[in-house]
Amino acid sequence: MTTPALLLDLEKLDRNIARMGARLEELGGVLRPHVKTNKSIDVTRRILDGAPTRGICVSTLKEAEYFFEHDVRDILYAVGIAPNKLDWAASLKEQGCELKIALDSLEMAHQVARHGRGRGVRHEVMIELDTDGHRSGVAPDDALLIEIADALTDGGASLLGVMTHAGESYNCRTSAELAAISRQERDRTVAAAMRLRAAGHPCPEVSVGSTPTALSVDDLSGVTEVRAGVFAFFDLVMAGVGVCSVNDIAISVLASIIGHQPAKGWAISDAGWMAMSRDRGTASQEIDYGYGLVTDPDGRKMSDLFVGAANQEHGIISGRSGRHASIEDELPVGALVRVLPNHACSTASEFDKYFVVEGDEVKAEWARINGW
Amino acid sequence: MTTPALLLDLEKLDRNIARMGARLEELGGVLRPHVKTNKSIDVTRRILDGAPTRGICVSTLKEAEYFFEHDVRDILYAVGIAPNKLDWAASLKEQGCELKIALDSLEMAHQVARHGRGRGVRHEVMIELDTDGHRSGVAPDDALLIEIADALTDGGASLLGVMTHAGESYNCRTSAELAAISRQERDRTVAAAMRLRAAGHPCPEVSVGSTPTALSVDDLSGVTEVRAGVFAFFDLVMAGVGVCSVNDIAISVLASIIGHQPAKGWAISDAGWMAMSRDRGTASQEIDYGYGLVTDPDGRKMSDLFVGAANQEHGIISGRSGRHASIEDELPVGALVRVLPNHACSTASEFDKYFVVEGDEVKAEWARINGW
Repeated sequence: MTTPALLLDLEKLDRNIARMGARLEELGGVLRPHVKTNKSIDVTRRILDGAPTRGICVSTLKEAEYFFEHDVRDILYAVGIAPNKLDWAASLKEQGCELKIALDSLEMAHQVARHGRGRGVRHEVMIELDTDGHRSGVAPDDALLIEIADALTDGGASLLGVMTHAGESYNCRTSAELAAISRQERDRTVAAAMRLRAAGHPCPEVSVGSTPTALSVDDLSGVTEVRAGVFAFFDLVMAGVGVCSVNDIAISVLASIIGHQPAKGWAISDAGWMAMSRDRGTASQEIDYGYGLVTDPDGRKMSDLFVGAANQEHGIISGRSGRHASIEDELPVGALVRVLPNHACSTASEFDKYFVVEGDEVKAEWARINGW
Repeated sequence: MTTPALLLDLEKLDRNIARMGARLEELGGVLRPHVKTNKSIDVTRRILDGAPTRGICVSTLKEAEYFFEHDVRDILYAVGIAPNKLDWAASLKEQGCELKIALDSLEMAHQVARHGRGRGVRHEVMIELDTDGHRSGVAPDDALLIEIADALTDGGASLLGVMTHAGESYNCRTSAELAAISRQERDRTVAAAMRLRAAGHPCPEVSVGSTPTALSVDDLSGVTEVRAGVFAFFDLVMAGVGVCSVNDIAISVLASIIGHQPAKGWAISDAGWMAMSRDRGTASQEIDYGYGLVTDPDGRKMSDLFVGAANQEHGIISGRSGRHASIEDELPVGALVRVLPNHACSTASEFDKYFVVEGDEVKAEWARINGW
């Protein structure tokens, strides 16, 4: 194996999946795993087998196509559809994929319905809700919600349900904040579904989710599915939010030490920002891990070292609490380290495969896809 | 074409290459293009044909292998070698690749020489110099420089020359600063080569470079090659450094508008941070372009809009100088925009191909590689 390489700790993966599974079983919930984090049929099968689930959620049509080719049929594409993707979406449906798409505007509802009529397919649509001001979606109490649903009743499209993603949960720092945003996500989404039903739209599906809210919610009444993806891997940002510990993080980048600047207390590794990604999600958290936290090559022992700065193929490792006098002895040239990432989705996307490890033994190589 | 897609403006690419070519011809310099930005044989051939060049420079052995398979033989792998890559490097040499490797420590010099002896190859080595405190490298006046060279004379390795990268040039903001760091890069590298020669080491090669210094240096005496990569595409960071204008930027991401939050003055696009990359290089510059500057779909008209925030597959477009009252009329659902990136290397790496355009017409598709 040459470095940098993406490692996936099987024991931690399974433990994280079991935790989410137990949590949802307790609440009577069902998971629709968001596969944007892992983009791998092998990881996704592990989730589908390890927790109460129904179908998957994807962030690109390329993911939808890849997972459908690997026999997953029930797929929600949870990013607002664009006109130039409707032919691709229809083609997947025509091949037998149970694809659901999302939108949040009257104009797109009309375009989708028109496209479906012209093509002879019926697009199944989730209306995206904005329950926390994070980005997209219709406000649950906006008159627009009913107008969009009304536009989806003419043959080329049908309303399947409502969905939201409480993205603001990533900014929570206390369990009280997490509990509040989880309750808000559920309450507002269920309220929107009830408004639609009162207006004569069946609206069978009520989909909510994010890793922080899925692990914090205490009542899923009225919710038909929970979407989450990062929970299977976890990362330093999730540790900062407080929904996991750094010991739960299942992915890491294996790197080699290639040099030093002893006077500065630096070791230079071959995992720069191209390997770790440019994600600096912990910069706004209580503990800023730079481009990642350094552990020993087995991933067992956390160190005081982090990737304090990075260039494309160079990671500059230094002490988090100041200059490391003996770094060249601790990490000589050729030494291996594992680096835990800020953000699992972005770091994993830099690689085309996972080396699946138990301890320091490689058990398998699992391919993943990227791009669009 | 579905969005997001990576566009490469052929006219701008050719203009940027011609500019670097003219600059080097004027100074009697020769370019070793750094292909870590483009990772595409088609782009690289355009550079090799359009400017005075010799070989290429790569940031990974995967690049070395790919370009060697496409008939480029003279290749400098300019990141400090790691022990687990020496077999791969030797294998490329055995197949006829004129691969040169880099290092900056006595320990690695010994390891490389030992590996070469054991394998029966002679590794050609460039000693990396630190001329500006940016990251790796031996100080040009350090006794270590001669010790490393002495370790490279025993059959398994030979000293080819010295190299540096004035990475601090990215932090320059004035032409005076650029001129100073360019002079420093040349002077210190040439001085190190002279020290080695005085100590009896031939040291034929003297390699310097970065896009800002290559475009600012006024004297290349004693330098045998200049390395630069971003210059062919340029980006918003380079515009902030002052070595190009935003109109010179040859790559962009084509995106679709998928929704709005009219009350906030937001348009939502399908080019989030997965398409733009997480690079926020302009955050520390005079003009912060968020995740990218929005232009019209032809790339001709710059706007006051930028990608102010981003999620994985969502870009939140808003006004740079405040709330955009009419954004939903200016950019209706389904509208296309081009987004100019902060950093060409990181944005291009999110894609596996370039759509090569002249105006808004797609002339070709050029594949690129990623990963290790």
